Amino acid sequence: MPAQKMASERRMLRVFAGEALTPPPIWLMRQAGRYLPEYRAIRARVGDFLELCYTPELAAEVTLQPVRRFDFDAAIVFADILVVPDALNQTVHFVEGQGPRLDAIRSAAELARLNPSATQPKFQRVFETVARVRQDLPRATALIGFCGAPWTVATYMVGGQGSVDQAGARLWAYRDPQGLQRLISLLEDVSVEYLSGQIDAGADLVQIFDSWAGNLPDDQFRHWVIEPTRRLVGRLKQRHPGVPVIGFPRGAGPLVRDYARETGVDGVSCDWTMPLQCMTQELPGHTVVQGNLDPLLLLAGGPALACRVAELVTHFSQRAFIFNLGHGIQPQTPPENVARLVGLVRGAD
Amino acid sequence: MPAQKMASERRMLRVFAGEALTPPPIWLMRQAGRYLPEYRAIRARVGDFLELCYTPELAAEVTLQPVRRFDFDAAIVFADILVVPDALNQTVHFVEGQGPRLDAIRSAAELARLNPSATQPKFQRVFETVARVRQDLPRATALIGFCGAPWTVATYMVGGQGSVDQAGARLWAYRDPQGLQRLISLLEDVSVEYLSGQIDAGADLVQIFDSWAGNLPDDQFRHWVIEPTRRLVGRLKQRHPGVPVIGFPRGAGPLVRDYARETGVDGVSCDWTMPLQCMTQELPGHTVVQGNLDPLLLLAGGPALACRVAELVTHFSQRAFIFNLGHGIQPQTPPENVARLVGLVRGAD
Repeated sequence: MPAQKMASERRMLRVFAGEALTPPPIWLMRQAGRYLPEYRAIRARVGDFLELCYTPELAAEVTLQPVRRFDFDAAIVFADILVVPDALNQTVHFVEGQGPRLDAIRSAAELARLNPSATQPKFQRVFETVARVRQDLPRATALIGFCGAPWTVATYMVGGQGSVDQAGARLWAYRDPQGLQRLISLLEDVSVEYLSGQIDAGADLVQIFDSWAGNLPDDQFRHWVIEPTRRLVGRLKQRHPGVPVIGFPRGAGPLVRDYARETGVDGVSCDWTMPLQCMTQELPGHTVVQGNLDPLLLLAGGPALACRVAELVTHFSQRAFIFNLGHGIQPQTPPENVARLVGLVRGAD
Repeated sequence: MPAQKMASERRMLRVFAGEALTPPPIWLMRQAGRYLPEYRAIRARVGDFLELCYTPELAAEVTLQPVRRFDFDAAIVFADILVVPDALNQTVHFVEGQGPRLDAIRSAAELARLNPSATQPKFQRVFETVARVRQDLPRATALIGFCGAPWTVATYMVGGQGSVDQAGARLWAYRDPQGLQRLISLLEDVSVEYLSGQIDAGADLVQIFDSWAGNLPDDQFRHWVIEPTRRLVGRLKQRHPGVPVIGFPRGAGPLVRDYARETGVDGVSCDWTMPLQCMTQELPGHTVVQGNLDPLLLLAGGPALACRVAELVTHFSQRAFIFNLGHGIQPQTPPENVARLVGLVRGAD
């Protein structure tokens, strides 16, 4: 099918042609996840979280579940940003209730443990999930591929786990920037292949998650967030010129303006702390804005939810805008609140 | 001594008269703390952390320790933002290595457990510390009193402990804003008394710590950060018109501009993620800027430290500016790095 035809069928893609749609397209970060009983049922069938990511049949099924329930305008392939270090041969496992644990890389010398030529078998399973999802997805629904941004993935690879201060990677950045740059460059290379493979398998667009972008001073943000993202997006655009790229520099705050202008992304996903006024005034007019409902407000529900949703939809009515949360959906969120949100956004409440 | 004379003696206060000083005055958040062996020696003598806050002789001693070592331009009274809930009769204790634990208040009905008329005995001990410190402090050194901002103190009182997402208070804010407002109003009342008492006892200026200001959507930030701070500052200014107030809305990002313009604070302390350009361009010209070295960079030391310190000092050379960290000093920071920092800022490195 020609790209133009596809674009007109898929509302998510029309937004990237500059259209301000009413109602705006909607999908939610982590829409396939623990808040859904049908997800928990599948999750209970596999021992390890990464095994679910690497089983295309099941990964495709959990990708499709929220689309069936809520008719979202986009599906996002079920995977994890730590597929990349895992595929590089770093030891990654998920401890129930505690999150990921990695065999931390603490110096440039330890980068030798990573094997960039080993990634294909695991990447292929994600690509197969993408292909399966695309086959079963309604034609009007867009499919999003994704990866973690080099900086955010590096914070896990260096820290060995998630952390509130990312001290491992941040100290390394101060003490040995050249050494850390080797890891970042390697992640850029591998992420280009990973996103490119997802696009080849059927992803309509991709999102780059930089969940830990927001904890850096301005000079570090430029060096470790903007520059690697700019290189990654540039290389991807050479191979796939028409495929939209959304960046999610969580917590970028006032630096979101430079991020949008300098990285080459087509859209910026804003976290819930980004003031609406900044999203309209500081982001370039051609940048698609995505966001940014507080996930806790979706969990809370009630009149406050309706009020804020109306504020968001009204605020962005003249803008190429995708309705989303400002971060992933909380596991305790009642599914009926999600149904209500979709109704509110589509004006049916 | 007349206020004018004092102001000229104390470089910290000259900045609040609008002077751009070279070198800028310097103090560090959490400068009295675990990174100092002499602090750890005193801390080992008392069982409970709050007991140290309530023992004026020892609290004064640890307040003075960093000033003796590094000749900072200001001392900050040794206390904790949880003195306020503790003085209100909420159960507060500190678990070694885990932080504070409070008997959480989960509804407006439970506010009855708090006793605003019970605060004086504990507040008086902090006031006595202030008086002792002022007596022993060099005349050129300013003394800072402080409290937590209502929102941040409420996040602990409601959550029962520190948390990365402040879900307890944030969900309450969405579900029952009137109920939470009762807690915030109570904290405003008590904080006015607490800061006022510190000023009466000898504090030259005060700082309001809003460590969890940065995790809120714009409408919530206005309601729970800007408004309570504006009321608190307004009431304090009525009683102590000439006493400078610094606000520290950590993580405020693009909202720092509204915070500075609307709360009535004389100075804004910026966290390390605030871009330097925002600090000069977005904050009003009459607002004193304080900040914002990354505490991890002070821990790391090395050439990166010298480079960033030079950048900060140069960037703010034409501005009424106080050199500080962007958050509290890390316990693992080598004291020699702090000595080096002071040398760098004062041009002696």
